[in-house]
Amino acid sequence: MFGKLWEEIEGIGRDAHTGGYRRYAWNDADLEMREWFASTAGARGLDYVEDGNGNQFAWWGSADKGSADKGNALMIGSHLDSVPDGGAFDGPLGIVSSFVAVDELVKDGFEPGRPIVIANFADEEGARFGIACAGSQLLTGRLDPERALGLTDRDGFSLAEVLHSRGRKPERLGPDADILGRIGTFVELHVEQGRNLAYGDQGVGVASSIWPHGRYRFDFCGEANHAGATAMADRRDPMLAYAATVLAARDRAVLREARATFGRIEVEPGGTNAIPSRVRGWLDARAADDDTLTRLVDELVAVARAEAESTGTTIDFTAESVTGSVDFGGALRDDLSALLGDAPILPTGAGHDAGVLSEYGIDTSMLFVRNPTGVSHSPAEFAEESDCLAGVAALKCVIAHLAGGDPP
Amino acid sequence: MFGKLWEEIEGIGRDAHTGGYRRYAWNDADLEMREWFASTAGARGLDYVEDGNGNQFAWWGSADKGSADKGNALMIGSHLDSVPDGGAFDGPLGIVSSFVAVDELVKDGFEPGRPIVIANFADEEGARFGIACAGSQLLTGRLDPERALGLTDRDGFSLAEVLHSRGRKPERLGPDADILGRIGTFVELHVEQGRNLAYGDQGVGVASSIWPHGRYRFDFCGEANHAGATAMADRRDPMLAYAATVLAARDRAVLREARATFGRIEVEPGGTNAIPSRVRGWLDARAADDDTLTRLVDELVAVARAEAESTGTTIDFTAESVTGSVDFGGALRDDLSALLGDAPILPTGAGHDAGVLSEYGIDTSMLFVRNPTGVSHSPAEFAEESDCLAGVAALKCVIAHLAGGDPP
Repeated sequence: MFGKLWEEIEGIGRDAHTGGYRRYAWNDADLEMREWFASTAGARGLDYVEDGNGNQFAWWGSADKGSADKGNALMIGSHLDSVPDGGAFDGPLGIVSSFVAVDELVKDGFEPGRPIVIANFADEEGARFGIACAGSQLLTGRLDPERALGLTDRDGFSLAEVLHSRGRKPERLGPDADILGRIGTFVELHVEQGRNLAYGDQGVGVASSIWPHGRYRFDFCGEANHAGATAMADRRDPMLAYAATVLAARDRAVLREARATFGRIEVEPGGTNAIPSRVRGWLDARAADDDTLTRLVDELVAVARAEAESTGTTIDFTAESVTGSVDFGGALRDDLSALLGDAPILPTGAGHDAGVLSEYGIDTSMLFVRNPTGVSHSPAEFAEESDCLAGVAALKCVIAHLAGGDPP
Repeated sequence: MFGKLWEEIEGIGRDAHTGGYRRYAWNDADLEMREWFASTAGARGLDYVEDGNGNQFAWWGSADKGSADKGNALMIGSHLDSVPDGGAFDGPLGIVSSFVAVDELVKDGFEPGRPIVIANFADEEGARFGIACAGSQLLTGRLDPERALGLTDRDGFSLAEVLHSRGRKPERLGPDADILGRIGTFVELHVEQGRNLAYGDQGVGVASSIWPHGRYRFDFCGEANHAGATAMADRRDPMLAYAATVLAARDRAVLREARATFGRIEVEPGGTNAIPSRVRGWLDARAADDDTLTRLVDELVAVARAEAESTGTTIDFTAESVTGSVDFGGALRDDLSALLGDAPILPTGAGHDAGVLSEYGIDTSMLFVRNPTGVSHSPAEFAEESDCLAGVAALKCVIAHLAGGDPP
């Protein structure tokens, strides 16, 4: 049964050349994934709802406003979008596992003691508009709708234009206390992005915390000129300060046991025989605590400024999005770990909608499924089927535990 | 009169946002420039011809095959295409000046003693298909037509497809000894790309030589992975070896009094939160002599390999095009310098069609027009009108000198 649902989505948005997925917010592949979510919910008689931010919900039990179960629902799920050329598991594993767990519980004759809702959060990766967890951040009011609507993709289209073209109402973007008010607990199942579980003998772990992280844009500005005719001394080449900052990011991240990556760059004018006028690089940085992250980024901005100055260029710095650390509360975490046979408790450097909902105040936890290589955000991302099935079994166990008897 | 022709092309292919020109081989702007060349030739009663490679010629005097003037024509002109966001002068200055010089000579009642032809060489910058001086290299047989037809632009279209879509016959690409056999001398006027003339009191100089130069592709290959969840020690990030090679290129070029530039880069997958799987960077390198260039590039390949190895990545190296040094022969050069009041004799790091024709064996020289800032390949590229007019006067003087009496 896991296999059938998995096969339905396997080909959607997969690039034939790279084998990676290109499911970006509101593109054709993302829409196909969204339709799959809605029809999969419908085929099971689950009550399907899409909120004003594009988040999708499939309710087992009443989704009505003013329900007596207000504040009591157990939410499971994850997201269906991907990074550029991403893997098959990051996101979809949590949603497929949720549907399979519900199917098996229904088959087992399980009768939930509280409503259960499967969520697909929109635009978790931020691959198109640059802000990660946009759907959950809009829902909780953490991301300002006006700011979100003005974000543009690489072709210059704003989110407002894209929503409109996809038949959505941009003016509906924003927080929805009504939906959030019905959620008592959220448990997100996700493939591990790292190798903690790979070293142990259990296929499923429980999250302890999410590292603070941020995306920062460095605009190195110089002067375009002829690559052949301009003496080295006469140049104002912004690629040099960019390169020095890339190397400093690696060195400083190692020193601070943090993580720093330059994975996206835009060069203007971008000709082989032209010295660039501008190099725009994006830094992804994460650390074990907020202080360390702040220091790391401050150091890199200082390096970039010094390198820019010494090469006759300038630098503009923009913190595009910064998320503080999230500590998944002790009681639920310990409860689930014990329930799952003392499942390992692991921190993660990756951001998740679970972090956003936890910050909002909802009791939240995460289950991680073993990733043998640790590789993620890549076509090589992988999980063994036996571990995926262990993830489903764990999720069933958690649902039965949290929603099996009287509302907690 | 200079102003009128200049104004006719000023707006063609100019980007409203950057102010730079985007006239790339066979794009809409390039086609408009080509039509302007043909109609400007036609309006003057010049005999207009386009060869199989897209090079355009406007003949004053017989262009017929088997003419008695075979091997005797004086060619002037330059090119009309641009680098990405290029300036107004690089290329078009030579062609507008040629038309204006011919107009004034006609008005003066000058009767040429040998045929004069104005040339617009196709795809000089190589901005679209990656090979500079493609039109003149095809004409002289230096660039293989099969290789050229297989070159692709950034959207994946081959030159063969593009030629076909523009109503040209790809099978006509290739050397044309008949046309070349009619040319006795070529003098290309060009804006200076550098500041040699800016330091002196003469607005026009004569070229001594073109530095050897090449375009080289470095493919740094690693493994895509999650930017947040992957420990620094577990990464195979190709951006690091790229950055180290960029800095080494600057340092080694300074040491060898050469030039090295990384102005174009492609990153896959290109997501902010993904470690790249591949970073492809293009090196433009030039030096005063062939040996120095070879050593510089060899050193940089060695640096790239060592850096790749130390970061768990690999590197593929491709020399996309390499052009040896060109020495503009002594007699014509000294003759023109003396003719123009001991005009300064200058080397240049930029490649030109004049270099390709000189290598083919045609007696060739270049006139440079002062560039006050030295900036080129940029919207900021500039020449004073008085210097442009001095360029036209020099070109008239050269034409009268070389084509005024009996054929030399």
